[in-house]
Parts: sequence; C-alpha cells; structure tokens
Amino acid sequence: MNVVVGQSGGPTAVINASLAGVYEAAVRLGADRIYGMKNGIEGFLQENLVSLKEVLDTPYKVELLKRTPSSYLGSCRYKLKTPEARPAEYKKVFEILEKYEIDYFFYIGGNDSMDTILQLSKYGKTLGCKTRFVGVPKTIDNDLMVTDHTPGYGSAAKFVATSLKEIICDSSVYDMKSVTIVEIMGRNAGWLTAAAALAKGEDCVGADMIFLPELTFDLDGFIDKVQAMQKTKGNLIIVVSEGIKVADGRYVCELADSAQETDSFGHKRLTGTARFLADECTKRLGVKARAIEFSTLQRCASHIASATDISEAYQAGAAAVEAAASGYTGVGITLVRANNNPYQCTTGIGDIEQIANHEKTVPLDWIDESGMGLREEFIQYAKPLIEGELLPYYENGLPKHLK
Amino acid sequence: MNVVVGQSGGPTAVINASLAGVYEAAVRLGADRIYGMKNGIEGFLQENLVSLKEVLDTPYKVELLKRTPSSYLGSCRYKLKTPEARPAEYKKVFEILEKYEIDYFFYIGGNDSMDTILQLSKYGKTLGCKTRFVGVPKTIDNDLMVTDHTPGYGSAAKFVATSLKEIICDSSVYDMKSVTIVEIMGRNAGWLTAAAALAKGEDCVGADMIFLPELTFDLDGFIDKVQAMQKTKGNLIIVVSEGIKVADGRYVCELADSAQETDSFGHKRLTGTARFLADECTKRLGVKARAIEFSTLQRCASHIASATDISEAYQAGAAAVEAAASGYTGVGITLVRANNNPYQCTTGIGDIEQIANHEKTVPLDWIDESGMGLREEFIQYAKPLIEGELLPYYENGLPKHLK
Repeated sequence: MNVVVGQSGGPTAVINASLAGVYEAAVRLGADRIYGMKNGIEGFLQENLVSLKEVLDTPYKVELLKRTPSSYLGSCRYKLKTPEARPAEYKKVFEILEKYEIDYFFYIGGNDSMDTILQLSKYGKTLGCKTRFVGVPKTIDNDLMVTDHTPGYGSAAKFVATSLKEIICDSSVYDMKSVTIVEIMGRNAGWLTAAAALAKGEDCVGADMIFLPELTFDLDGFIDKVQAMQKTKGNLIIVVSEGIKVADGRYVCELADSAQETDSFGHKRLTGTARFLADECTKRLGVKARAIEFSTLQRCASHIASATDISEAYQAGAAAVEAAASGYTGVGITLVRANNNPYQCTTGIGDIEQIANHEKTVPLDWIDESGMGLREEFIQYAKPLIEGELLPYYENGLPKHLK
Repeated sequence: MNVVVGQSGGPTAVINASLAGVYEAAVRLGADRIYGMKNGIEGFLQENLVSLKEVLDTPYKVELLKRTPSSYLGSCRYKLKTPEARPAEYKKVFEILEKYEIDYFFYIGGNDSMDTILQLSKYGKTLGCKTRFVGVPKTIDNDLMVTDHTPGYGSAAKFVATSLKEIICDSSVYDMKSVTIVEIMGRNAGWLTAAAALAKGEDCVGADMIFLPELTFDLDGFIDKVQAMQKTKGNLIIVVSEGIKVADGRYVCELADSAQETDSFGHKRLTGTARFLADECTKRLGVKARAIEFSTLQRCASHIASATDISEAYQAGAAAVEAAASGYTGVGITLVRANNNPYQCTTGIGDIEQIANHEKTVPLDWIDESGMGLREEFIQYAKPLIEGELLPYYENGLPKHLK
C-alpha cells in the first residue's frame, strides 16, 4: 500500500504534527511507500516527491517534526480549478497517482485544500480510480465548518493570549495615559482575535476592548469609547482583528492613506489596522498610542504550542489514514468535542462538501452586549484548546527543529 | 536596617528577578522594612511606597515574581536633574529617606537610572547622609559600559533568535521569491539585532543579512544586494535594527513619507524601518516583501526567558544588597565573565560614573567584512547568555504572573 501526503495553505505551529500522525499511522498499517509532496499539489504535478521513510528514519526525528513549525514539506497557495476548466491538470494528477501506485492521498490544509480533496475524489470516481482522498483540516483561523475546531487554532490562541498577558504587564508600568492596540490575524472570522479574551484572569485585567470582524466597526464610536474609558483607566489595551470593517464595507486599514496592495493571490493585504487606529487616537485625542502586530509569529510560534493542539493535530492525521483504510474517500477529518468538562475530543469523518468553501465565524451571541467582549460560552469553548505544553527540545538555548 | 528599591526605564523580562534578588538578600541580611517605590523615583517623590514583605509573603510569590515580565513596581522615565537645577527635588528625596530611615537605596534600570544613583550618592555625601545608593543594571539593549553584559539582554536575545528561527521556517514554505524584513529594537547599539545571528545552526540557515546601527546603511547598495542574492535564493530573511541610519545621518525610517513623531521624552519614535525597506524592495524590484516588527514582545516575552539571564538578574540584585551592606555607595553592580567555556559569570562592583551616561556598542571588528553578518567572536560572547529555560508556572494553559 502506497501513500502520498501534502501540506497546503498558510502554515501553523502544528501542521507538522498532522504530518507525523499521517506518517506513523501509515507505517503502522504497513504502507510500503510513504511519499511527501513538496509544495503541495503544485509540487505533486511536477512529481516533486520525497520518501518520508528516508527523512523520518528515527523516532526522534518524528518527535522533532511535531515540534517544528510551518509546513515541513513546503506549501502552496495553488487551488485546483474544476476538471472542466483544466482537464490536462486532472489528467496529469491521475497519471502520477497511477505511476506511483498511490492508494491513499492525504492533504493537510484549510478550505481550499478541502476543495482540492473534493474535486479529486469526484473526478477519481468518474475514472474508477482506486485512490482514496482524505483531507486533514488545519488553520489558525478556526473557520472550517463541521469540525468543532481546527488543529492549529489552539496553539495560535495560546500564543495570542500569552503574548497579550505579557504586553499587558508591559503597558501598565508607566503612570501615564496610553493606548496599546494589538492587531490579530483573521480576515472574516474573529476566532483568533477572540482568543485575546483568554488572557483575562485573576492575575491579568485582560483587554479593555476586543473587536471582531463579525461586527461592523464604528470609528467615531470607538474614539468616544477610548475617551470615556480613559477617564477611569489610563492604560488601555485594545485588540482588533485585521479584518474589521466599517459600515460601508471597507476594511478599517483601507481608511488609511497608505497605498492599497494585494498579495499574489489577489487578496487585499491587510496590515495597518492597529497602526491606523493608534494614529487616530493620537490625532483626535492627543493620547500616546502604539500599535503592535503579532504578525506571522501567531502561526509559527511552536515554542509555545498547545499540547492539546499538537495532540489533536497528530490524531487528525492518523484518523485520516484510518478513514482511508476503512474505505472512505472524499471526506475530511473533523474534531468532535465529546465533553467539555473534563474536556474530551475525538475525531470524526466529515462531508468534505460541507467543510470546503464555507467559513465558520464566531456566533454573534457569543459576543457580549457591548460588542467589545466575549461571553462565557466562548471562554468555555476555547479554554481547553490552549491547555498543556509540549516542550521544545532545546539546543544552544534555542528550540530545535527538523531540518 | 531599612531598604528601598525601585525600577526604572523600559521593562525587561527579568527586571523582576533583580527585584526578587534585592528582596531576598535584604531579608537574609535581616532588613526590618523593605519598601518598593511605585513608578520609580517619581513615585518615591510622592512617598508612593509598598511594603514588599507584605506583597511577597510566600516563597511561591517570589518565584512567581521571577517569572513575571515588566516592572512589577511600575516604572518611570523621569530623570533626576542635577541638584543645582532642582534643589527642591533633592531636598524632598532626602527628607523622605530620613523620614523612612532608609539605609540602602537600590535602583534597577539603564543608563539614566545609573545616573540617578550617581547624583543621589554625590549629593548625599555633601549632606553627610548615611543612606547608601547602589544601582542594578538592566536593559535589553546591552549597551551599558563596564559590565560584561546586562541583565535583560539574554532573554530578549533568546526571544529574537527563537522567533527568527520560527519565522525562517514560515518564510520558506512557498516556492516563490519573497523578502521578509524583521525589525529589532535598539536605537544606537546593535546588540539585540546581532542576536539574530544566533538563529543560524545545523537546523536553520539563519538570516541572509543583518544590519546593525553601528554601520552606515546604504539603501541603494541594499537593494542591489537583495537583487543579487535572489538569483540564488528565493526567500530572503533580512534583519534590521530600528536605529539604522543612512550616510547623511537620518534614520532609515525617516526616509518614509509618513509623519515623524517623537515620544513623550522627546526621542524620535522609530517604527517603520522594516516597513519602509519592504516597500522599497517591492517598488524597485517588484518582489513580494513583508515587514515584521518584533515590537514590545522583545522585552516582555518572559515565557521564553533565558534561565541564565534570570539567574544573573537575581544575582545582580542580591549583590547590590551585599555591596551596600559592605559599605559601598554610588556604585553599580556589574556582571563579570570569569570564563567562557564553560561559561562562568560572577558579579562585580563598578564605577557608576563609568556606567551611567555612556553607551556600549557592538565592536566593529565583530561585524564581518560584508557588513551584514556577525563574526564568531560575537557568537561566542552571546551564546551562553541565552542558555537554559526557567519554565513558567502554567495555569489554564497560560503562564501565571504575580499580580
């Protein structure tokens, strides 16, 4: 039995734990050859394959892989078009699958990657191809449908809440009025921004305002709130999603004068939301304001990964192999919360059509009446996901990664 | 015997470990009252004092203090003027010292704080005041004279090198040309930026270019280098100090169109160096470029603090108390590297006049001939300072701090 596995989309701190899960489950099931595709489906189309049995030849390397952030196999943003639009591409994929006698095809990624699984499995059926296609979800955004949450979210949330606690310590040292605005990733879904609410506890006052993209942002109202709140609290900590929009549909960062840019996939580049808001506070209220972007660190800070997340990412990978071995194809692995207190989570098998191409946003009734905070429902949902630490292997004072 | 201790200047991940060191050494020497001044000398002038025996009433709290980032007592940026300029202020300080019968006065901070110790000790001598004044160095910038290195630097350096390793993993996943520019704190001294060189190892290719403020930055030459280097390596990682300047003396960030601002101490606000350079790369070379600012996290990420740094910060605090008890005044504690391999470090007593008001920069002969890398001398110097981890106490998945 031969297997191929790839990674796609933006990396996370635990996407390699899913790769480790796929790998070890495939070995356990007696796979002959286990290929990794370099740079996802793009590399696959070029037959850019590596033998995972060669690169993961010791248990230590698998453990190291689980502690290595980002996509070990490389990633791509390439989205397969439909077979009708690109018949040659599909032909190529299935020629390669046949050439390498691939029984199981696994793809670890977000919405687009689940769509790739969907397209390939549908097309495979028309050919009567034996290959089974199973998706393994990952994304720090937590915006996939069907699954309770996504591998990658817990670690990003832990980084956000940990860093925010530290920044709150830092911001409160001077006895003067100031505004600190922290910008968090998440274009349409506010899950990661909401994780800022986890910072609050008996040792931390938490953020003063949290703005999710699920609600329309009111700039004038925001300035008024800052002014009002500073009458009783000098140092304000405000957390904003990069994707917040004003009523006319523009992103807040588009209100800035700086030029608009799009990334290589045509998505608008969203940076500068916090910078813009900090500048507005200074301009309108004359208050010292600073902007902090957590930036890429949110998705790659494996040194503070959640053990729960790493474990679930690994299990999702392994479950994909078991699903394929049981005959499933065109499905995606899901995480199923069996119980919340104590937290228990198992894996399930989800309809890929439901997972792909949809976005799950934060339920509006989990946002409190002020529109700037999260209710207890969210806290109970998110808290178990950041639990536990899988410590890095340190060498020369730094976390070691699999090269 | 009564003691007062304060913290000043920008916080670090380990400035509270020095406070713990002062506190426990004072307890050991039988201090009756141990006061903490809130918000440094500014709070002291308002008699804003707390009893540390009350707030640190269990060993657990002292351990928690060592793991709490930022200045537990609060900080200030207030710099005492000379006695001639502000006679009333000095009179007030010494009245309060007399009122509370303070024998030892400790101040944990950077250059300005050491100057405060210098001024107070000189003025005290003229009064025949019994109070002894000892400074405890701290700064992530590592720019203090006399001491081998400063408490705070090792942890900031560990955060920089750890995060850079993770970002390098993240940046290399796509098979396309890109430039990632990471901006590091440090106005005139490049020590922290240089710490980026520690990321390189057998599991990490390291940064492609590192620019310190010690050398003049050549914008055109930089663009040429990026273009040349991308012929053989698609993904470039470039690390720049926020304080790099071009030949005419302007900061690189001043070349951007965005408005110049100064902070409340009249220092120019230095942000946007990486952003500006990334924009230049895109504009001139048409290459995808992103900017990452490590920002405040550099000085408050106690969750990845260096155990060596925490231990030395603690020892420096304790050594200050011992110095005062031995009769010293108007001195600053230094770290003295006794041996490098194996690393051994002790504390010393330094001339505060030499420590205060000077800046120690990276020796030019530690920068390699390309001007974009660090020589082995720097690596050997910095490597021991990031060694070891003092793990946080985790609660609900997050590092716990002393409130």
